[in-house]
Amino acid sequence: MSLLDRIRYCRRPDVTRFRRFVVAGSPVGWVPPGLADRLRGFPGVFAVDGDSVRIVDALAAFESRSRAVGDAILRLREEGWFPGWRDEAFAVATSFHAPPLLQIERGAARAFGVRCYCVQLNGIVDRDGLRQTWIARRALTKPVGPGKLDQIVGGGQPVGISLRDNLIKECAEEASIPASLARQARPVGAVAYFRQEGDISDDEVLFNYDLHLPPDFTPVNTDGEVAGFELWPLARLKAALADTDDFLFDVALSLIDFLVRHGIVGPDDPDYIEIAEGLWSAPSQGAA
Amino acid sequence: MSLLDRIRYCRRPDVTRFRRFVVAGSPVGWVPPGLADRLRGFPGVFAVDGDSVRIVDALAAFESRSRAVGDAILRLREEGWFPGWRDEAFAVATSFHAPPLLQIERGAARAFGVRCYCVQLNGIVDRDGLRQTWIARRALTKPVGPGKLDQIVGGGQPVGISLRDNLIKECAEEASIPASLARQARPVGAVAYFRQEGDISDDEVLFNYDLHLPPDFTPVNTDGEVAGFELWPLARLKAALADTDDFLFDVALSLIDFLVRHGIVGPDDPDYIEIAEGLWSAPSQGAA
Repeated sequence: MSLLDRIRYCRRPDVTRFRRFVVAGSPVGWVPPGLADRLRGFPGVFAVDGDSVRIVDALAAFESRSRAVGDAILRLREEGWFPGWRDEAFAVATSFHAPPLLQIERGAARAFGVRCYCVQLNGIVDRDGLRQTWIARRALTKPVGPGKLDQIVGGGQPVGISLRDNLIKECAEEASIPASLARQARPVGAVAYFRQEGDISDDEVLFNYDLHLPPDFTPVNTDGEVAGFELWPLARLKAALADTDDFLFDVALSLIDFLVRHGIVGPDDPDYIEIAEGLWSAPSQGAA
Repeated sequence: MSLLDRIRYCRRPDVTRFRRFVVAGSPVGWVPPGLADRLRGFPGVFAVDGDSVRIVDALAAFESRSRAVGDAILRLREEGWFPGWRDEAFAVATSFHAPPLLQIERGAARAFGVRCYCVQLNGIVDRDGLRQTWIARRALTKPVGPGKLDQIVGGGQPVGISLRDNLIKECAEEASIPASLARQARPVGAVAYFRQEGDISDDEVLFNYDLHLPPDFTPVNTDGEVAGFELWPLARLKAALADTDDFLFDVALSLIDFLVRHGIVGPDDPDYIEIAEGLWSAPSQGAA
């Protein structure tokens, strides 16, 4: 394996098996065949044909769409769909800054293939001239990637909160980073990917942040989502990303970007240009 | 204008007017119609048909190809082709780390549409809690972008020298940065673009570096390529990039990446995701 393989893993569109999920005339996701068939059972909410799953025109506003889709999703949950239920609402829109067309339970977002957003934080410690970063091990109870390695803080972006406030909230919950420190986090770019496997479409943008932490700061988890933290030199991080499958697959993208920006992966790497290029996949909504 | 417009300016493929430039069976550039017609006059070097301009198979090695193409280019130069002659050889290859198939005069590289590489340095000064960067004004005698604004150091990547050594050489020539200081420059990523206008194909990868300079360091140009230097706060840089045409168009890409990495352009910018995505255009060699 190599760093480039980590990126390629996240770039697997397989759109021929999926129908477009269309809201107010705009494609905003991908629905797998089994779910599309089941959604025919909700003709007051979804119009299903061979190419697309549309929310019916009668549901013309954010509130009515969110309520009707939410009710249908609750029914389906009882039938065993959407195992990773989160009780957290994600916005569905044509772009990040566009007004949301509806909101949808996070645990159903992957099944509908809507684009999700998250904030990812690198916790950096410079000690004795050596740059290190805090690595978290995800709790075994996490619905996605239990036990996998992760950044010190990361979280999905719910509807109705700013990225900055979400980052500060996640910093407190996941690592006990006080708000005064979390506010010093600097946005450093974004990476994206689009991946389809089985009935799941992962279409995600990761907003990356760097935060320099005092050497005497030790993260403490408070929400039960992290099993523990370790401080790693960046060379160890690079080796683990290249040689093992230990990191959550999308977190790996954010961390490869981190290694590139900090010069740990440099232009002597034969894959350097492909890595820089691959951290942005083609936008999924134009993929069909 | 906006930052995104600067990126869009660099993403204009117009491949239908051009023929592929093919060496040893691999596409490595784009030749405009007029030049392709003229190259029919060198049947011992080029084979021209409706789709491609190939170097003939009899020229089977780096040395023989470079000599034969070089002789033809010298003849064409006497006829007025290739006005921006540089007496500097660029490698032509299928990728940056692949063995070069031939070398070609830099002043002819754009006319043959081969992918060029360069090193771009951000000279950073932190003073009184304010991050600033050195901006250069290009000399009026430069063949490309005379009088335009630029980074403190930047240069094309000639054949036969490492990126690191080229950067150190350019640091000395362009800004009198001593080698001991230049060696501290950190690679921070790469951006790329592909743009065709008139008979020119610009296919370029910019390797970006950050260097923190002491507050008392003042750059001094020694090779006549820079008219002067100014130290700018990053907010001024952002405004100038968004609102004016003062920066060389490809340098603007490297600087937008710089502003993103340093958090001056953040996710509150409505174009943030498109900017991050646009800093890598589709690879030109796959564009046809």
